Amino acid sequence: MAKANKRVAARLPRGFEDRYAADIAATDKMIATIREVYERYGFDPVETPFFEYTEALGKFLPDEDRPNQGVFSLQDDDEQWMSLRYDLTAPLARHFSEIYQDAAKPYRTYRLGFVFRNEKPGPGRFRQFMQFDADTVGAAGPEADAEMCMMMADTMDALGLEGKYVVRVNNRKVLDGVLEAAGVTDEGQKLTVLRAIDKLDKVGIEGVKLLLGEGRKDESGDFTKGAGLSETSQENILRLVDWDRVVHVRKQTDSEFVISSVEVADDPEGAAPRTNSEQLSLVRLAWGYNKLCVAGADELDLMNNLFASAGYDENRIRIDPSVVRGLEYYTGPVFEIELTFPVTNEKGQEVVFGSVGGGGRYDGLVSRFRPEATPATGFSIGVSRLATALKLTGNLGTQETCGPVVVLVMDRDQVAGYQKMVSDLRKEGVRAELFLGSTKNFGKQVAYADKRNSPCVIIEGSDERVRGVVQIKDLIEGKKAAEAIKDNAEWKSERPGQFEVNRADLVDEVKKLLATYGIGKS
Amino acid sequence: MAKANKRVAARLPRGFEDRYAADIAATDKMIATIREVYERYGFDPVETPFFEYTEALGKFLPDEDRPNQGVFSLQDDDEQWMSLRYDLTAPLARHFSEIYQDAAKPYRTYRLGFVFRNEKPGPGRFRQFMQFDADTVGAAGPEADAEMCMMMADTMDALGLEGKYVVRVNNRKVLDGVLEAAGVTDEGQKLTVLRAIDKLDKVGIEGVKLLLGEGRKDESGDFTKGAGLSETSQENILRLVDWDRVVHVRKQTDSEFVISSVEVADDPEGAAPRTNSEQLSLVRLAWGYNKLCVAGADELDLMNNLFASAGYDENRIRIDPSVVRGLEYYTGPVFEIELTFPVTNEKGQEVVFGSVGGGGRYDGLVSRFRPEATPATGFSIGVSRLATALKLTGNLGTQETCGPVVVLVMDRDQVAGYQKMVSDLRKEGVRAELFLGSTKNFGKQVAYADKRNSPCVIIEGSDERVRGVVQIKDLIEGKKAAEAIKDNAEWKSERPGQFEVNRADLVDEVKKLLATYGIGKS
Repeated sequence: MAKANKRVAARLPRGFEDRYAADIAATDKMIATIREVYERYGFDPVETPFFEYTEALGKFLPDEDRPNQGVFSLQDDDEQWMSLRYDLTAPLARHFSEIYQDAAKPYRTYRLGFVFRNEKPGPGRFRQFMQFDADTVGAAGPEADAEMCMMMADTMDALGLEGKYVVRVNNRKVLDGVLEAAGVTDEGQKLTVLRAIDKLDKVGIEGVKLLLGEGRKDESGDFTKGAGLSETSQENILRLVDWDRVVHVRKQTDSEFVISSVEVADDPEGAAPRTNSEQLSLVRLAWGYNKLCVAGADELDLMNNLFASAGYDENRIRIDPSVVRGLEYYTGPVFEIELTFPVTNEKGQEVVFGSVGGGGRYDGLVSRFRPEATPATGFSIGVSRLATALKLTGNLGTQETCGPVVVLVMDRDQVAGYQKMVSDLRKEGVRAELFLGSTKNFGKQVAYADKRNSPCVIIEGSDERVRGVVQIKDLIEGKKAAEAIKDNAEWKSERPGQFEVNRADLVDEVKKLLATYGIGKS
Repeated sequence: MAKANKRVAARLPRGFEDRYAADIAATDKMIATIREVYERYGFDPVETPFFEYTEALGKFLPDEDRPNQGVFSLQDDDEQWMSLRYDLTAPLARHFSEIYQDAAKPYRTYRLGFVFRNEKPGPGRFRQFMQFDADTVGAAGPEADAEMCMMMADTMDALGLEGKYVVRVNNRKVLDGVLEAAGVTDEGQKLTVLRAIDKLDKVGIEGVKLLLGEGRKDESGDFTKGAGLSETSQENILRLVDWDRVVHVRKQTDSEFVISSVEVADDPEGAAPRTNSEQLSLVRLAWGYNKLCVAGADELDLMNNLFASAGYDENRIRIDPSVVRGLEYYTGPVFEIELTFPVTNEKGQEVVFGSVGGGGRYDGLVSRFRPEATPATGFSIGVSRLATALKLTGNLGTQETCGPVVVLVMDRDQVAGYQKMVSDLRKEGVRAELFLGSTKNFGKQVAYADKRNSPCVIIEGSDERVRGVVQIKDLIEGKKAAEAIKDNAEWKSERPGQFEVNRADLVDEVKKLLATYGIGKS
């Protein structure tokens, strides 16, 4: 009695979960497909451990508002702080810096593994989740970024998502140029503006405008202070935020209409979709006076040439100047994979599935460790989120795994003989096991096999043993037959799906049966 | 200048390491082999997260001396203590207890993953390492334990270690019976005795005897207090510790010699090796008066029958009453895989490689969470240690992975054309990449390809472009030829391994070349 009180509750900390056979098998298959693409592109695997020194993870914490939160940290016995990695990029920077002298440069690697976020968990938001990254370190040109975009597209195709995704590409220099043009130079103000833009989905264009200006009061009455920009600066930035509605303005000259400027149209007709070239013309038209914007557009132009020459059109890789990726460290091209098929959200609204990964150029990250200028680009796929998407589109192998053949224990003192049957089956590659539970009840043993999704059970009672035979009970056929037979007496006389074979033929007969159901060797 | 001071050292916390492509590929292959065996035996994968509540991990910490150390722990924001798992067994007990109602029982699973020990790292001792476990929860009989032993043996065979291992099997009840017979009943005293036995390798039989008695002073002069057992009790336990030297004593009766007792022989001749049946006869002869010992021997007898009927002889699975596994929670059969081939240790001595895994029955573990009696058995393989063993025996696939075909960038403004070549190759499954570094130097680009272990590079200068051809430089042939050619002028005129093909035939010619080296599709 007293002991019962001491019992420990069997539960996990919030934000963590167990994973089961079907999910593990499906995810493994998906990962193998992704890995094949990455390797075909010339990337090799590397693996870093779960812990890094907290200082090595640097200032790029997932949430700048809570510098001491976001990651799981603890002090080592020499009092140095260690943290569990929160992504696979910061550890790569540390790793590459360590092997700098000997590494083949550019250093092209992929990395797969769990990362940890010490954040409030929610539906679909876990504190441990898997990422699958590829990065090229030591490549300065936009060719490297273009390759990332093409590899993301090829990966989606390999997973069976043709026509259901688009890789959106932008350049952080365009955004930086627009902010510069809008007079935003102070780092704090810049962060406020980025956060405002990031909230577009939640607060809409009007909400973003308020957050760029004086500020915004939400439904609960809480006031968020804005960036305090002038009306002209707000308009300049909003043009980028509301990019799909931006149109050319044609002005009449003496002889013809020429495109002279851009504006946000009330009527979006005639705006998006545009070709990648049109997108870049529009950027030049809107902010051609700003050097950073032009530099960004030039790089995107080069990337677009590579996409075109390799046969990737706008349906697969789309240049979209409104793409903003959250992390601060990006310095050039940024990109994200958006899955475009519709799903219903928690509010019952139909929305596109959205992002399953993304990345960009981060030329500053390695320089935290080393004096050499080390440009780098890469991207990260959210494995669980992508698996969810594949489940929805029927592209994840979700068929149940086939259970083992179960040899029933009819007489406990004959267990060596039953074990021999199991060994014989296994030797021929057949997935098999002895029933190891304590029950002697025939029905309960069959119920166990049913629960395991077993194709058949093997039965040898004393009568069979004397005659040198065994019964094979086909559970797949049996289930089908059971649906047809209603009468218990009929059932007993029919014993659907059950047949007798010589003990010596057991393995061959089981293999024959499995073959009829398309179940091969394990 | 000031910035340089702020640079962070690129280094990992002690006891953690990065892993590289060759090691990852070899380990993955090894894991796939093990997985195939486990699945053939009817086990299905399950995965638990890295964190558990500290209380769920329970009192079974790796080192009882330091209850607050051994594991990595931190407090969640609700002040509950969480720990990183230190093995895959404690999380299984929590997991099974949670799904108890719905689980197919017996619950047969395998689990693969990293575990963490917050211990002092040393050579070959890491604070993060991988284990690969299989467990059957809810099976009380020794059939389940026997299956574990056979699966361990089959796993070693599948890895190519035939004749290089032995699975040693004992029963904790034999040990407990011997301790009981020696009058050791107090838990504290029992722990002292177990630690003494565990030190056999370090201190020898004489050292163990001192630790069972008054105590032992080591070379540094430190004194370790002993268990304080009487001389008779010491002898009784030492008989088990020194088991290989135990022999039958034959006494003459009226008409014949009969085996009447056992003793530790000065001359080990005629002692081990013994058959499994002889081992068990000897146990009965030595401690037949103790019920626990006999119960343990009876279970081992049953297991031995199963081994024999399934064709596992003493060379593969050996009953060895001297096996003591450290962890406290074992309650029945225990087993370990010993690799028997010789290696040279740090002291230059030739020793057997030793244990790469083990396990046993732990009927008490699940009952920490649930009132139902839930017997369980399982074992764990140390993945890194096993990989090291396979490396030594040449059974680990250590051949270098083939690098990508590298298309060189001869003219930077022709990069779209080079990229097209890469895309064409990849579309046909050929591992390929564009040279993405900044150097225009031909030799440096080829050196990069060499470092990547590339089979060939593709060269298209302006001359080739005009003529519609490309050069394929065979780096494998080139290396061979370079060893033969000494003269630089000869080299330049010969250009070994380099040949010209039509641009239109590039993919076919590369595939043909790779096929001659046995390099298939990626």
